[in-house]
Amino acid sequence: MSTYDDLMAFQRDTSALAQVAGRLGWDQETMMPRGAADQRSDEMAAMEKVLHARRTDPKLAEWLAAIDDTALDPVGQAQMRHIRKSYDRAMKVPADLAVEIAKVTSKAQGQWAQARADEDVAAFLPVLETVVGLKRREGEALADGGDVYDAMIDDYEPEMTAVELATMFDAMRPRLVALREAVLAAEPPQAVTGHFPADKQMALAAKLATTFGYDLTHGRIDKAVHPFSSGSGHDVRITTRTSELDPFNCFYSTIHEVGHACYEQNIDDAYLLTPLGGGVSMGVHESQSRIYENQLGRSRAFTGWLYGQMTAAFGDFGINSAEDFYRTVNRVHDGYIRTEADEVQYNLHVMLRFDLERALMQGDLAVFDLEAAWNDRFAADFGYAVDKPSNGCLQDVHWSVGLFGYFPTYSLGNVYAGCLYQALQGAVPGLDEQLTAGDLSAATEWLKDNLQIHGGLFEPAEVVQRASGIVLSPEPLLTYLEGKFGAIYQL
Amino acid sequence: MSTYDDLMAFQRDTSALAQVAGRLGWDQETMMPRGAADQRSDEMAAMEKVLHARRTDPKLAEWLAAIDDTALDPVGQAQMRHIRKSYDRAMKVPADLAVEIAKVTSKAQGQWAQARADEDVAAFLPVLETVVGLKRREGEALADGGDVYDAMIDDYEPEMTAVELATMFDAMRPRLVALREAVLAAEPPQAVTGHFPADKQMALAAKLATTFGYDLTHGRIDKAVHPFSSGSGHDVRITTRTSELDPFNCFYSTIHEVGHACYEQNIDDAYLLTPLGGGVSMGVHESQSRIYENQLGRSRAFTGWLYGQMTAAFGDFGINSAEDFYRTVNRVHDGYIRTEADEVQYNLHVMLRFDLERALMQGDLAVFDLEAAWNDRFAADFGYAVDKPSNGCLQDVHWSVGLFGYFPTYSLGNVYAGCLYQALQGAVPGLDEQLTAGDLSAATEWLKDNLQIHGGLFEPAEVVQRASGIVLSPEPLLTYLEGKFGAIYQL
Repeated sequence: MSTYDDLMAFQRDTSALAQVAGRLGWDQETMMPRGAADQRSDEMAAMEKVLHARRTDPKLAEWLAAIDDTALDPVGQAQMRHIRKSYDRAMKVPADLAVEIAKVTSKAQGQWAQARADEDVAAFLPVLETVVGLKRREGEALADGGDVYDAMIDDYEPEMTAVELATMFDAMRPRLVALREAVLAAEPPQAVTGHFPADKQMALAAKLATTFGYDLTHGRIDKAVHPFSSGSGHDVRITTRTSELDPFNCFYSTIHEVGHACYEQNIDDAYLLTPLGGGVSMGVHESQSRIYENQLGRSRAFTGWLYGQMTAAFGDFGINSAEDFYRTVNRVHDGYIRTEADEVQYNLHVMLRFDLERALMQGDLAVFDLEAAWNDRFAADFGYAVDKPSNGCLQDVHWSVGLFGYFPTYSLGNVYAGCLYQALQGAVPGLDEQLTAGDLSAATEWLKDNLQIHGGLFEPAEVVQRASGIVLSPEPLLTYLEGKFGAIYQL
Repeated sequence: MSTYDDLMAFQRDTSALAQVAGRLGWDQETMMPRGAADQRSDEMAAMEKVLHARRTDPKLAEWLAAIDDTALDPVGQAQMRHIRKSYDRAMKVPADLAVEIAKVTSKAQGQWAQARADEDVAAFLPVLETVVGLKRREGEALADGGDVYDAMIDDYEPEMTAVELATMFDAMRPRLVALREAVLAAEPPQAVTGHFPADKQMALAAKLATTFGYDLTHGRIDKAVHPFSSGSGHDVRITTRTSELDPFNCFYSTIHEVGHACYEQNIDDAYLLTPLGGGVSMGVHESQSRIYENQLGRSRAFTGWLYGQMTAAFGDFGINSAEDFYRTVNRVHDGYIRTEADEVQYNLHVMLRFDLERALMQGDLAVFDLEAAWNDRFAADFGYAVDKPSNGCLQDVHWSVGLFGYFPTYSLGNVYAGCLYQALQGAVPGLDEQLTAGDLSAATEWLKDNLQIHGGLFEPAEVVQRASGIVLSPEPLLTYLEGKFGAIYQL
C-alpha cells in the first residue's frame, strides 16, 4: 500500500463514522423515543469526539507531508484538496474554542426556542452576543488575517466571498422588490381550500419522489416536524410532513428533499465513503433541491400532470382547470416567514439575513441593535412592519447554533438553479411535453450526468459552470422569475 | 479528577459508542433500505474498529495499574471488576486472530444460510471446521491453560462452568424426557385456528407490552423478521412479528422481548452508560424474558385475562372457555425446531446443542461427525428421526457466527426463572388474583427491585440467589413444569 492508500483507508473509516453520526441525527428526528434525548446527547457527543480526534490525528500530518499531490490523477488530487483543507481547518481552531462553541450553542438553541415562544428578543440577545463573539474568534482563527465572514462562508461554499455575493445580491434586490410589488398589486390566484387526508398525501408524495428519480432501495421516506434529507451514498433518507389543509406543503417539501437526496444518491459510486462522496457545497445542494422543486416541480407543464394526480387522489378540490391550478401553486402572498416564502420573495428574506450577519461579524452592527435593523430592512423590502419577534429576527434557528455564512447559500442555490435550468431547457428537447406527462427522467438524468455524479470533484462554481456553460450570474434566475410571474399575473 | 474518574469518563464514551453500534444493528433489521447493506457493513466495521481500539487503548493499562480497587466503594469495585475483565479479554486475543474470526464467520454465515436452503450439510461443514478451529484458538488464548469451553461460556455467563452446567442438565434431562413422553401420550388440547388480522395483533401486542411494564417513552415496538430487544438505559427497543394464523407467536414473542427490555430499562439510572448499566449475563437476561413469557404470561391466571382481551379484539375464535384457552396456549406438540418449542421440550433442544458443542470444542467430536451425532441424540430424546438438515443441525445460526458457549445460557435462564418464580409466589400475596385482572405491576416491580435494578453489580448466579433466596438448582423449574403440565394433561 502506498501512503496515499493508507490515508484513503483512514479517510474511508472517517467517512463511514460520519455517516453513522448522520444516521443518529435522522433517528433522533424520526424514530427515537422521546425519553431517550439525554442519553442520545451523550451518544452524539461521543461520536463527535471520535470524529474530531480522527480529523486532527497526528498520522494525518505525516501522511499529508509525505504525499506529492502532483503525482496523483485528477481524482486523487481532488481527494487531497478536500483532505488537506479539512485537516487545516481542524488544526486552526483551538480545541478549547471548539468545545466552548459546542457548549454555548447547545445552550443558546434552547434559549432561542424559549425566547421565540415568549416573543422576548431581550432574553435571547445576551447569549447571541456570546455566540457571535465566539464565532468571530473562530472566524479569525480560520481567516489567517483575511476577512472573517469570508472564512465562515468557506465552510459552506468553498471559494465564494462576501463581496461576490453582495455584488450579486445587490443587483438582484431592486428587481425582486419591483417584481414583488407588481405581483402583489395584481389580481391574486385563488388559494387552495378543502381537506386532504394525510395518508393520501403520503401516498402521492411517495409517487412524486420516485417520479423525480429518488431510489427507494437506497432511501426511505418518513414523517418529521421539519423536512430534511440525510446521508450519502447508498443510504439517503428523506422526511416530509403533512398538513391536511395544505397539501402543497407536503408535496413541494418532498420534491425539495428529493432534490437533495438524488444529488447524494447519484454521485459516482467510485467516490463512496470518500471526501468526494458528498454534495460539494450547500449552494450546489440547494440548486438541486430548488430546481427540482421550482423550475421543474412548479412549472406549468409539470403542475398539469400533478393536477391530474391530485384530482385522482382527492376528487374535486375546488380548482377547475390545470391553468388555475398552476396559478394557485405559484400564488404570491404577503408573509413574514422565510421558509414559507414563494419564489418571488424567498431571496429577499435571505439577503436581509446575509447583510445583517455580515454586519454583525464585521462589527458594523451590534447584537443589541439587531432587532431594529431587521425590522427596518423588512419594512423597506416588504412594505409592511414585522408584528412580533417570532415573525422577525427570532424566526430562524441558524444564528443560535452558530451558523453564520450559511444563509447566503440558499439564494446562491437559486442563482445556480437559474443557470442550470437555462442550460437544461436547451439540452433536453421536448422537456415541456415530458413534464406534462409526468416524465422527469431526461431532466433528472441530465442533472445527474452533468452535475450530480461529480460529487466533490470540482469546486462549487466550477461544477455549475461546467454543467450549464454559463459564468455565474443572477440573470437567468431573474429572467425566469420575471417571465414566469409576469405571465401568471399578466403584468 | 481522580484516575478512577478519568477511567470512568473514558468508559462512558465507550459505552455510548457501543449503544450507537447497537442502534445501527436495530436500524439494519427494521428501517434500513435493502440496497444499503454493503455501505452499512463498512459503517459497522468502522464502529467495531473504534470500539476495539478503545478496549485495548494503552491508557487503560496505565489507569488499571494506578487504581487501587480496595479504596473504592462496592459500586466502584464492581465497575473495576467489569473493566479489568473486559481489558484482559481484549488483550488476550491476538488482533490478527480476532480479525480472522470476524472475516471467516461473516463468510460462514452466508454459507450456512445457503446450505440450510439447499439442505446440504456437506457444503457447510468445511467452513464450520475452520470456525471451530479459530474459536478453539481463541478459547485457548482466553483459558490460560484452563478449560477452553469454560472460557467461551464465560463470555456469556461469567463464573459458570461446563461441569456445573452438565451436572445440572444431566439431572434435568431424564425428568424432561419422561414428562415429554407422558404429555404426548395424553389427549392433546385443541390447536388455535382462524384468522387474526396483523394490525389487531400489533395493537394487542402494544397493550401486552405496557401491561408487563415496558416503558414506551424509552422504547418502541417495530416489526422485524426475528423478534429481538436492543439497547440499554433510556433507549431500549423491541421488535416482534405477526403470523395471521398464529397470534400466540406475536403475543409471546412480544412478552419475551419485553422481559429482556424491562431488565435493561429498569437498571439503576446511576449506572447509565457504565459497565454496570446492562444486563449482567445472557442467562440472567433469559431468566427475565422467560419468567415474563412463561411463568407469568402462560399462567392459568394471566391467560384468563388474555382470553378476554383476544375475544374483545377478534370476536369468537373457536375456543369456548378460559380453561380451554389456557390448555391451548400451553399445548405440547412434536417438532424439530428449538425456537418453536414449548416449555416442556425447549430445554431438551438446548441440552443437545450444549453437549455437542462442548464435545466439538474438547476435540471429542469431529465436525464431520456432527450431523450423525445430532440425529442420534435427537432420536434418543424426542423419539423420532430428523427428516432434513434444516430441521436438524443446520437450524440455528449460532455456530456459523462463532457463538459457542451461548446455547446453555438459554436453559440456565429457565433454571434461574424457576428459582425466581418460586420466590415471587411467596413474596407477592394475591399474585394469581392480580394476573387474572391483567395486573402485572406487583410481580414486575418485585423483579425490578430485587434483580433488574442491579444491572452488573453482582455476578449472575449471585444476583439470582440474592433475589430468590435459593441456591442455584433446577428443582424449582422441574417442579413447576411437572406440576403445570401434569395438571393440564391430567397425568
